[in-house]
Amino acid sequence: MAQIAHLKIEGKPLYARIEEDRIYRIDSPFQISGGTLLPAIAEEQIEYLPPILPNKLFAVGRNYTEHIREIGGERPSEPLFWLKAPSSILPHNGFIQIPYPEHRTDFEIELAIIIGKTGKNIPLSSVQNYILGYTCALDITDRTIQKVEGQWSRCKSFDTFTPLGPVIETDLDPSKLKIQLFQNDILKQDGNTEMMIFDCHQIISHVSQGITLSAGDVILTGTPCGIGPITSGDTLKACIEGIPPLTVHVK
Amino acid sequence: MAQIAHLKIEGKPLYARIEEDRIYRIDSPFQISGGTLLPAIAEEQIEYLPPILPNKLFAVGRNYTEHIREIGGERPSEPLFWLKAPSSILPHNGFIQIPYPEHRTDFEIELAIIIGKTGKNIPLSSVQNYILGYTCALDITDRTIQKVEGQWSRCKSFDTFTPLGPVIETDLDPSKLKIQLFQNDILKQDGNTEMMIFDCHQIISHVSQGITLSAGDVILTGTPCGIGPITSGDTLKACIEGIPPLTVHVK
Repeated sequence: MAQIAHLKIEGKPLYARIEEDRIYRIDSPFQISGGTLLPAIAEEQIEYLPPILPNKLFAVGRNYTEHIREIGGERPSEPLFWLKAPSSILPHNGFIQIPYPEHRTDFEIELAIIIGKTGKNIPLSSVQNYILGYTCALDITDRTIQKVEGQWSRCKSFDTFTPLGPVIETDLDPSKLKIQLFQNDILKQDGNTEMMIFDCHQIISHVSQGITLSAGDVILTGTPCGIGPITSGDTLKACIEGIPPLTVHVK
Repeated sequence: MAQIAHLKIEGKPLYARIEEDRIYRIDSPFQISGGTLLPAIAEEQIEYLPPILPNKLFAVGRNYTEHIREIGGERPSEPLFWLKAPSSILPHNGFIQIPYPEHRTDFEIELAIIIGKTGKNIPLSSVQNYILGYTCALDITDRTIQKVEGQWSRCKSFDTFTPLGPVIETDLDPSKLKIQLFQNDILKQDGNTEMMIFDCHQIISHVSQGITLSAGDVILTGTPCGIGPITSGDTLKACIEGIPPLTVHVK
């Protein structure tokens, strides 16, 4: 197993490849071999930055049947996706800021795909070549604005509304992973990626039809059921099997 | 009047500031003074690149009353906006590629705002400080997908679906400008920016509530009535008073 991370160590940002206990400094998040071996670092001296800064941040909706039931709406015949603002990305250990506390603002845990190289109209058979890896994400949603406006870009694009990380797992089969969201240590969402209506490969191929994907682009793959509102003071922990957990707080 | 352009001259890309007949080479599109005076260049030796490569490309909808009437839907109580993929931007003289020729694909002319510096929660009174300038845009739309999916990011994000340019006008009052779209020299859209429900300043202030705007971000401000389908072989000319016209073709 190898991981790509964007870290701040002793105040300096760097990209790193982590292999077991060894950390290699690399030039870009797309460097999957080589690099400079760093001396051992205590975990508490590491600050996690967003593992990637995408040009495009896609989100897929209505991709778990039980979630479609809880939220209403129809099962799509193709992956349904839209764009979130990349400026909404929040790193591991960051603080979510709720812009409208009088609105209902929800957590949604999602598996995030990180694209590894430029591609367009990618056939299913070659999707694997375009994947850098996977990480944990939350798709924080102002449910009040979502209902009023009908369009889903704004209500999910406020600053801090896309917690992402802590690291990109580059060796991971995404087809059958437990995906669980804990709010203040209480299990709220408890799914498995095998329950996705469209799997990661189908999603990537579909999104790339007519739209050029670039290295670093991120695709969130939808949330299982169990979504609920967040409140100031909450701690959210996103656990996806095979990836270190992502923890964030609500300011 | 001064203009910012991203040009290719003798095969080399450069940013330029154009003042009357003088072209200055500048280091970035945000350099509004100084630069190196270039020798005179024949217009036919200039290739126009997208004037800006934004991190975020916003689009406002339902912002002209007559267009809401022709397309259906309600007049919003606040500017209604979503995100388009920046990879959809097409330069002046480029070719629109229709990914699904069996679908209805429409032109929509729009005035584009270019953000000049980073800001968030910008009050109306200081919006002017955050504007680099304005340019012409088309918001090409796969109307078939728009109706089926309900979300407006994908149907407007296919590669080449955001013709933008040719240059950024930095000295322009956007409040009362003729805005006209010609399809094969026939006038199809004929509006005025004074017919906007929300003006440019109101839009910028609203979009920035909770969302950090960065220098180079682009906001399309909605289309007047008269939208219609495009076909292979078409030439589209977007004319907005005070900005050189934007011309693109349909492949």
